[in-house]
Amino acid sequence: MTAVSAPSATTTSFDLGPARALSCRECGHETPLAPEYACLECFGPLEVAYDFGRVRREDIEAGPRSIWRYKSLLPVPSTVESHPNTSPGGTRLVEADRLAKALGLRKVWVKDDTGNPTHSFKDRVVGVALAAARELGFKVLACPSTGNLANAVAAAAARAGWRSVVLVPSSLERAKILMTAVYDGNLITVDGNYDDVNRLAQELAAEHEDWAFVNVNVRPYYAEGSKTLGFEVAEQLGWRLPDQIVVPIASGSQLTKVDKAFRELGELDLVEQTPYRVFGAQATGCSPVSAAFKAGHDVVSPVRPDTIARSLAIGAPADGPYVLDAVRRTGGAIEDVTDEEVVEGIRLLARTEGIFAETAGGVTVATAKKLVEQGKLDPDGETVLLITGDGLKTLDALGDRVGPRANVPPSAEAVLNALQD
Amino acid sequence: MTAVSAPSATTTSFDLGPARALSCRECGHETPLAPEYACLECFGPLEVAYDFGRVRREDIEAGPRSIWRYKSLLPVPSTVESHPNTSPGGTRLVEADRLAKALGLRKVWVKDDTGNPTHSFKDRVVGVALAAARELGFKVLACPSTGNLANAVAAAAARAGWRSVVLVPSSLERAKILMTAVYDGNLITVDGNYDDVNRLAQELAAEHEDWAFVNVNVRPYYAEGSKTLGFEVAEQLGWRLPDQIVVPIASGSQLTKVDKAFRELGELDLVEQTPYRVFGAQATGCSPVSAAFKAGHDVVSPVRPDTIARSLAIGAPADGPYVLDAVRRTGGAIEDVTDEEVVEGIRLLARTEGIFAETAGGVTVATAKKLVEQGKLDPDGETVLLITGDGLKTLDALGDRVGPRANVPPSAEAVLNALQD
Repeated sequence: MTAVSAPSATTTSFDLGPARALSCRECGHETPLAPEYACLECFGPLEVAYDFGRVRREDIEAGPRSIWRYKSLLPVPSTVESHPNTSPGGTRLVEADRLAKALGLRKVWVKDDTGNPTHSFKDRVVGVALAAARELGFKVLACPSTGNLANAVAAAAARAGWRSVVLVPSSLERAKILMTAVYDGNLITVDGNYDDVNRLAQELAAEHEDWAFVNVNVRPYYAEGSKTLGFEVAEQLGWRLPDQIVVPIASGSQLTKVDKAFRELGELDLVEQTPYRVFGAQATGCSPVSAAFKAGHDVVSPVRPDTIARSLAIGAPADGPYVLDAVRRTGGAIEDVTDEEVVEGIRLLARTEGIFAETAGGVTVATAKKLVEQGKLDPDGETVLLITGDGLKTLDALGDRVGPRANVPPSAEAVLNALQD
Repeated sequence: MTAVSAPSATTTSFDLGPARALSCRECGHETPLAPEYACLECFGPLEVAYDFGRVRREDIEAGPRSIWRYKSLLPVPSTVESHPNTSPGGTRLVEADRLAKALGLRKVWVKDDTGNPTHSFKDRVVGVALAAARELGFKVLACPSTGNLANAVAAAAARAGWRSVVLVPSSLERAKILMTAVYDGNLITVDGNYDDVNRLAQELAAEHEDWAFVNVNVRPYYAEGSKTLGFEVAEQLGWRLPDQIVVPIASGSQLTKVDKAFRELGELDLVEQTPYRVFGAQATGCSPVSAAFKAGHDVVSPVRPDTIARSLAIGAPADGPYVLDAVRRTGGAIEDVTDEEVVEGIRLLARTEGIFAETAGGVTVATAKKLVEQGKLDPDGETVLLITGDGLKTLDALGDRVGPRANVPPSAEAVLNALQD
């Protein structure tokens, strides 16, 4: 516990485990651990820098079945489990032989993050954000969101007994509104699009120094939570890295953090440093990073999103350039798929493996299929697909393409006739 | 693997692990392991009888993070994990201090089964049913259902590469239809109520000897899957039994199997045989077992269900008398709550612990509250509440009682004003 009553950039007494400082991704300038997110020198994004001590597999394996087993690799206090939290992580890594066959890949694993407390990977990043925010002296958990993050923030705040402020566009689907409102925090719908909501969050974060907007002013800590996806995949494979991994791109943060996780595991000798390739997946209706990759650009030109994959619909992805770096460095590629292919991707995963993903999962599966067809994914490489959210939250995307085989009167003969059609 | 091409009651060569025979719950008559569910002597329900060898904690703890760690206590082959399945179980046991305080109980744990693959405990029973059905020679996985079971059967069949036939009333909510249809089995909607659908299933099961209707002709095996809820609770508590557990009642099978699990653990010296009390929860609009308990009856009179807790809406619960036995034997009680209390129960759990349960979970929480107020649950007893399904599947039950705090124009001032109201 800290005695700090409000965030302050001048103290360095925070217990954030192995985190040593914040470091600018652009100019490398270091600043003490603090509730900051932009470099004071160049306004570049800050990232957590660490002094990892010795980290051993046995210590991790002896930990809880949640992301906190990796606390020695995260910017969180060593006492993190003792504070009420949703205990995210520990989701299934599914050996997907039927999907592999359908895709023409030798070996596929599906990381199924629908098993998280609010059914998306956002529980991971919010878990880390809350733990860091508590230590940094914040009192309110907040975010701008279009769905999954809203659910995760509202649930985590409820569990912790914190006040929450969640801002969403008023056009959001009823299911996402209800699944946020039920936790009884302060859900405010805003007449505007996500960009408007995001700007509002920036403004409110600047005015309220005890409000932790998880994906704004606590973003350097928050983003580290995505590393746990990479850690879990490697541990569940028996402490080794896959040959290939396909990751959906929204802001791009998740892809860069999975890459970071794999590098850290190698550097710490927790896995052998075998080569791996990182692939990115976008919906064509919001594919600025894919476009930049194909054009050979280093920067990403913003677009106006128009896709059913709403959780990936970020037209100006903050981590776009870092995604391009990671994908090019590892020898991967980035592709994009149409909304129709997204739905087919959802159906393919459901039909072959019994996993019902949200649209982002459809993007990942459909992109993997395209990458195989293009010869970019090695059919003999062991491949991991990240499924980051739940189909129950994006039912409308299925449209009329999914439904009962038949509707019949209550007679056995009618059922049998329907099955023969 | 079995060489049997179709089910046969005459062979006893099935590898169903520790399962020894089927035993009639009414007359005790034993019959060899087979695809049977009713006693040939008295038509009573059959239950699996076991010859457990020595079962050690260490062997269980060394097993997978799914229900298969308990395979030595289930009617499944010892090779069960080697066949594709959804790997259910391993869900969180949440230390619920904020809920405990709200309920006036010293210590509460919430078993959160929304973390299962299709977000309800039905994945557990279907997992066991599929494993037994494969061994018994069935070829098609089937069920009548009003929702959760339909989701679980369709997903498990998809994952296993089996054909599925799922029958539901045509009035079922669109979300449940879509979440079943997406797995691309044979979903048939039937113009009729659940009773009609159930009768159809009985008829079809009699006509098709290779169709495993999980909750009809494979029921003795299927039902054993619910024991894993009890096993997990005990193991997660550090291999001990809670003082009190509150279980929702639909057919009543789950409650009796949790009780059976606790007894088996004690008999096998896996836990100390400490006293525990089992409490049952129903919605007042479908409370035949609660009514029988209060009236001191041994039999349950059927009712016509009228409640928002549709997953509990079984008017003629097959295991009603056995529920009454277990609750009375352990010194527990059964209560029921109104639909309004159900919604308040959902909201209380969400607000205090960040867990969004379906209506059945609201029934459990609201009933626990009522049992505390009545002095039936001991405020000093360590209490477990079973949350068996997910709020995303029963959004309509929330009605207009849950929603945003305010809708505002995109200005910081408007947000702040809304928060002050």
